[in-house]
Amino acid sequence: MEKKKIKATCYLFPMPTVIAGANVNGKPNFVTIAFCGSLQYKPPMLVISSGKNHYTNIGIRENNTFSVNIPSIEMVKVTDYIGTISGKQIDKSVLFDIFYGELESAPMISEAPVNYECKVAKIINLNGTNDIIIGEIVQTYVNEDCTTKGKPDIQKIQPIVFSGFDSNYMKVGDVLAQAYKIGRDYKKE
Amino acid sequence: MEKKKIKATCYLFPMPTVIAGANVNGKPNFVTIAFCGSLQYKPPMLVISSGKNHYTNIGIRENNTFSVNIPSIEMVKVTDYIGTISGKQIDKSVLFDIFYGELESAPMISEAPVNYECKVAKIINLNGTNDIIIGEIVQTYVNEDCTTKGKPDIQKIQPIVFSGFDSNYMKVGDVLAQAYKIGRDYKKE
Repeated sequence: MEKKKIKATCYLFPMPTVIAGANVNGKPNFVTIAFCGSLQYKPPMLVISSGKNHYTNIGIRENNTFSVNIPSIEMVKVTDYIGTISGKQIDKSVLFDIFYGELESAPMISEAPVNYECKVAKIINLNGTNDIIIGEIVQTYVNEDCTTKGKPDIQKIQPIVFSGFDSNYMKVGDVLAQAYKIGRDYKKE
Repeated sequence: MEKKKIKATCYLFPMPTVIAGANVNGKPNFVTIAFCGSLQYKPPMLVISSGKNHYTNIGIRENNTFSVNIPSIEMVKVTDYIGTISGKQIDKSVLFDIFYGELESAPMISEAPVNYECKVAKIINLNGTNDIIIGEIVQTYVNEDCTTKGKPDIQKIQPIVFSGFDSNYMKVGDVLAQAYKIGRDYKKE
């Protein structure tokens, strides 16, 4: 296999596209993030990474709470919009129907099919451009019409994939195979 | 929007499917991971989360280096296989063509279209089931035939999406819109 060295880059394939939310100076603010990941089942944790100068980060530190919202492909325009303009310049609280959960200070987006309500577990400084914010998830919410047998259904949620090098939003495609099954009898050819 | 509370869960939508690699007791070992994410441009960092009892973790601690490899959909069987059986039981070093980079101790998979060679920046304990391993990327490799104008091309790489609740591997679908453009003139209706 012919390998080409490119500059050290952090773009995983594929990346999720999520919207983080926090109250900043008493008003809900939101920012689009692709640098994020699931971390742990027990206690349930996730991580988001947000540029140190982002307005949302102020609110996350202020309240020690935040939300992670999964937008659907129908929300792609507003998802892009809030990722390109700062809450210092515009009031993003008017863009969505907002609800709160048990933490009472993590604003969540009704229109987004899935919402994770988080309290800050740790904020890590990697001596670089971003705040690495680890959240413990206290509650997960899903739109009723995006469930199948009570569970979130990715085909109904229609989340947005982010592709880094070409800066594209993409759809999730067809099912390829069932995990923990397709490889069970694998033999190298 | 009718919201349903489900148990607090950490499955983001969508998740990547990657293969982490490390030398354990002098032999390359690999494990499949969906709990991971891009973290930072400068210095370039990523995170993987691996169950505390995983064999690969021993090697990551031993060498302070590891790799993250992006499998293509053609590799779905072997990707699933190594995620369902431990390196304590089988020798996974025979499953791939392996190459090393400048760190000399992070085994990478030739067949995987993209490879990130990493040194450990931090291992974090969240008092739970997983080791949270943050890596600084020292070099990124891409298969020549998966590039367009010298850059990794997601359409040629054909990475695997992991869907958590239904445990499915999925394809990446069509391009939906261009980021930093589609939302530029957004107005709420």
